[in-house]
Amino acid sequence: MKLKIKQATLMEHLNYVIKGISSKNLIPILNCIKFELTNEGLYLMSTDNEIAIKTFISQNQIEEIEKLGDIVVSGRYIYDIVRKLPNEFINIEEVVDNKLFISTKHSSFHLNCNNASEFPTLDLEEHKHPIVLKQRVFKNIISQTSFATSTQESRPVLTGINFKLVEKQLECTATDSYRLAKSMLTIDTDLTDDINIIIPTKNLIELTRLFNDDEESLEMHIFNNKVIFKFGTIVMMSKLINGTYPDTSKLIPTEFALSMKVNLSMFFDSIDRASLLTNESDKNTIRLESKENQIVVSSNIPEIGNVEETLDVTKNNDHEIKIAFSSKYMLEALKSLDCEDVELLFNGEVSPIIVKNPETEQLIQLILPIRTY
Amino acid sequence: MKLKIKQATLMEHLNYVIKGISSKNLIPILNCIKFELTNEGLYLMSTDNEIAIKTFISQNQIEEIEKLGDIVVSGRYIYDIVRKLPNEFINIEEVVDNKLFISTKHSSFHLNCNNASEFPTLDLEEHKHPIVLKQRVFKNIISQTSFATSTQESRPVLTGINFKLVEKQLECTATDSYRLAKSMLTIDTDLTDDINIIIPTKNLIELTRLFNDDEESLEMHIFNNKVIFKFGTIVMMSKLINGTYPDTSKLIPTEFALSMKVNLSMFFDSIDRASLLTNESDKNTIRLESKENQIVVSSNIPEIGNVEETLDVTKNNDHEIKIAFSSKYMLEALKSLDCEDVELLFNGEVSPIIVKNPETEQLIQLILPIRTY
Repeated sequence: MKLKIKQATLMEHLNYVIKGISSKNLIPILNCIKFELTNEGLYLMSTDNEIAIKTFISQNQIEEIEKLGDIVVSGRYIYDIVRKLPNEFINIEEVVDNKLFISTKHSSFHLNCNNASEFPTLDLEEHKHPIVLKQRVFKNIISQTSFATSTQESRPVLTGINFKLVEKQLECTATDSYRLAKSMLTIDTDLTDDINIIIPTKNLIELTRLFNDDEESLEMHIFNNKVIFKFGTIVMMSKLINGTYPDTSKLIPTEFALSMKVNLSMFFDSIDRASLLTNESDKNTIRLESKENQIVVSSNIPEIGNVEETLDVTKNNDHEIKIAFSSKYMLEALKSLDCEDVELLFNGEVSPIIVKNPETEQLIQLILPIRTY
Repeated sequence: MKLKIKQATLMEHLNYVIKGISSKNLIPILNCIKFELTNEGLYLMSTDNEIAIKTFISQNQIEEIEKLGDIVVSGRYIYDIVRKLPNEFINIEEVVDNKLFISTKHSSFHLNCNNASEFPTLDLEEHKHPIVLKQRVFKNIISQTSFATSTQESRPVLTGINFKLVEKQLECTATDSYRLAKSMLTIDTDLTDDINIIIPTKNLIELTRLFNDDEESLEMHIFNNKVIFKFGTIVMMSKLINGTYPDTSKLIPTEFALSMKVNLSMFFDSIDRASLLTNESDKNTIRLESKENQIVVSSNIPEIGNVEETLDVTKNNDHEIKIAFSSKYMLEALKSLDCEDVELLFNGEVSPIIVKNPETEQLIQLILPIRTY
């Protein structure tokens, strides 16, 4: 393998594949990046066996392709070296003894390479009927739901986001069993089979970090045990989580005893201040109590002090509510919304609270109350 | 105590005094801020017994002073509460049972207070003849020397910066016994006694974080066991480190076998790249070898690879040098310099390396070589 390439071009693509490498991986080959130089251009690949990332630099972006071939080299070292080189042409050449020679006008590096044949084969085939979304739309779904995912490995299915497609209706759900986030979307697809998969949340977050153009398309190719995302020059594979996602459809009530509307940013700030006088050990419990057209949000830590926040609300009837919940969960739910007023829906102090944009059903945030009254 | 004040005004000053509180302190009163409301205005104070910070909000910046008095309240809580309040007027009032009542239109907080009489007395008197410097000049001195301070508590005197004043010549020195930074300055002062004190580096760094106007003056009032800094509305006290600072004057050679000049930013980048193939366990050792009008900077990690960087230099004679040193120490020394070319001075492979701006003796960086040749 021998080529000459601009530092900035190579760096852009190393930035993608470096995200496929976990620094904690004990298997040396999984800390490596594979370079594969063909007549069409240079492919870069990385994998930690849970995800794989592949990117492509077309031959017209490469100054000189002198000799085809492939090498496998420590990802962290090649990444740092190229990052610290000036934006000039870099010569990259495989030399004797399985060594990579990287040189510019002033610098020359020799790096020991791994055996290319030991690098895992990446099966990144395409599906006939991918789901196609804008990167921006997909990023929104992930930011609206991912925070509600469980971090407890004891229930693996809850560490992922459930993607469910029934008749062009895509439902993305995350829950840690104390709260739930559900984002819904109608999509245009030729897929005839229903889909019901669980994708690890951490991989979806890595994916959205690779996005480089909000208005460009993302293809989602779904298989039995993996999903492949394609966008721009990048292909990313994620394994799926095995198991059955809990049926959450019956959790969300359809009728409510009370609906109230409150200014989103004022409500957020009040909860944020009230959360100062809560403890994590106490589930960050705060109380909300309505009285006619006002609510009082309150909390206290006995040895420190207490707080009361008063806000104006608009209610749909004269029911009153007294309820307690985690301020952390409420703040995260509110952050996912982008509207002037937020709608809060209640069925009493032991029933789930629904938090949503009053104008749309596209995004539903559900929070279970904490029994204190 | 009872007053009404704009949130932004109070916040600015809480930002100063919060830096006097260590979150690790186990003595509750040292996690507190003291409010002292007089006819002149509001004093805020904090101390962890190693440093003390006092700031003053003049009565004309306070909307209403209704009742004088003083209270002592948890620093972290009052800071976070005021930070999260909107920029409106805040009412602050001591109420029964040693409680502080903080209220705005929508929010009301009650905070338990500590006994004001338990707060340490801060003795922040002034010296007749302070040293006066611009904040910018003082900040430069600290950033040029602080990194060379030892972090090892086994030799306490080396965890501070030595300030030595002899006949209007101020010398500031930091060393961890492997490298040394010395910044020199002529100052205008009426002080007749020589000064030779050691100020804890961590306190000096905290001090520079309080600076709010580069062109404003800083007064340094030096006493036997403490130093008091005054600037703007702020007074900060730091204890001094007891002990005798090593005499470093003989460490810096005055004659050199070889001087070379090299472009600072190119030299920095070369060392930075070469440092990629060094290990901390191996003291980040890199080698420098001159050959006529070039130097080669090199390093290697046997299992990973090696690097060679070649640079043009201008030498004052035809001596050649082969020397090894810590890339980390060299990078930190180079970062403290602000010039086009840097001058490197050598007396052989086991003698200290001097790194400086060729135009001035104001700042000297010394690095001991590592014996490998």
